[in-house]
Amino acid sequence: MKIEYTQIGIIHSPFIGREDMPIQPSGAIGVKGTVEVFEAFRPGLRDLDGFSHVILLYHFHRSRSPKPRVVPFMDSEPRGLFATRAPNRPNPIGISVVQLDRIEQGVLYIRNVDILEGTPLLDIKPYVPEFGDQVEIRTGWLEKAKGIVSGRKSDDRFK
Amino acid sequence: MKIEYTQIGIIHSPFIGREDMPIQPSGAIGVKGTVEVFEAFRPGLRDLDGFSHVILLYHFHRSRSPKPRVVPFMDSEPRGLFATRAPNRPNPIGISVVQLDRIEQGVLYIRNVDILEGTPLLDIKPYVPEFGDQVEIRTGWLEKAKGIVSGRKSDDRFK
Repeated sequence: MKIEYTQIGIIHSPFIGREDMPIQPSGAIGVKGTVEVFEAFRPGLRDLDGFSHVILLYHFHRSRSPKPRVVPFMDSEPRGLFATRAPNRPNPIGISVVQLDRIEQGVLYIRNVDILEGTPLLDIKPYVPEFGDQVEIRTGWLEKAKGIVSGRKSDDRFK
Repeated sequence: MKIEYTQIGIIHSPFIGREDMPIQPSGAIGVKGTVEVFEAFRPGLRDLDGFSHVILLYHFHRSRSPKPRVVPFMDSEPRGLFATRAPNRPNPIGISVVQLDRIEQGVLYIRNVDILEGTPLLDIKPYVPEFGDQVEIRTGWLEKAKGIVSGRKSDDRFK
């Protein structure tokens, strides 16, 4: 079953090359960018400015053919693709939670951007925290990588 | 720009009709379901079982043409589409964070399912909490709807 989507906007960021990219939003704290929503879709932005954070869904436009195992940035062992956020996926959809500073004339001014310049936008959703403190979260192989993510930059491995 | 994706699996749940659906995961606590990943994509599941929660990305296969404003389930006023999680969107991509109980032969056994039976799967990502306690989150029009979500069921308004 083939599913066809359409670009509804474009994401602008300081990251021109994949080599300079932070690998997770925690490494992108404070980095500013914008989301230009195409005119036809702007009426849907009403009420969004009440949210401090939004979820961006976008197309990893520079991804390559996926492999079932990848060596993530925070690890030295190959891991199952779906246990990572690697951009080379069967359906290369990226999601990022970013801080929303303001919206002006169809442009979202955002912060904590970990997205490449020129990335096609697919959807915007309001961010609502998933869980309270009572839920215990396990994050598999990422547990041991905690704390080393913030300072790391992307490299060429997903070219 | 058109973007083409392909179905990589199918989500099974007790929700046959949209009328019975919980409107958010908080209303789906404990509801069990499965995700059947198609054989070609199963090697990518390795290491995923170390995560207690996963993010499912899926295609809202029964969505209709989007309108720029919708009246959400938790409100009586029309809100901008992108400030809601309504399924009728320009690109009808849904995301849910579900609890992962186990993986057996390419099938994920999941809990807290708020997804329709037969929904096409697009992607699986490991869930990692976005923010610590230090970040203040504002959720716009949803603030006043807090607490009334859990018990609410879906209805016909997105048919």
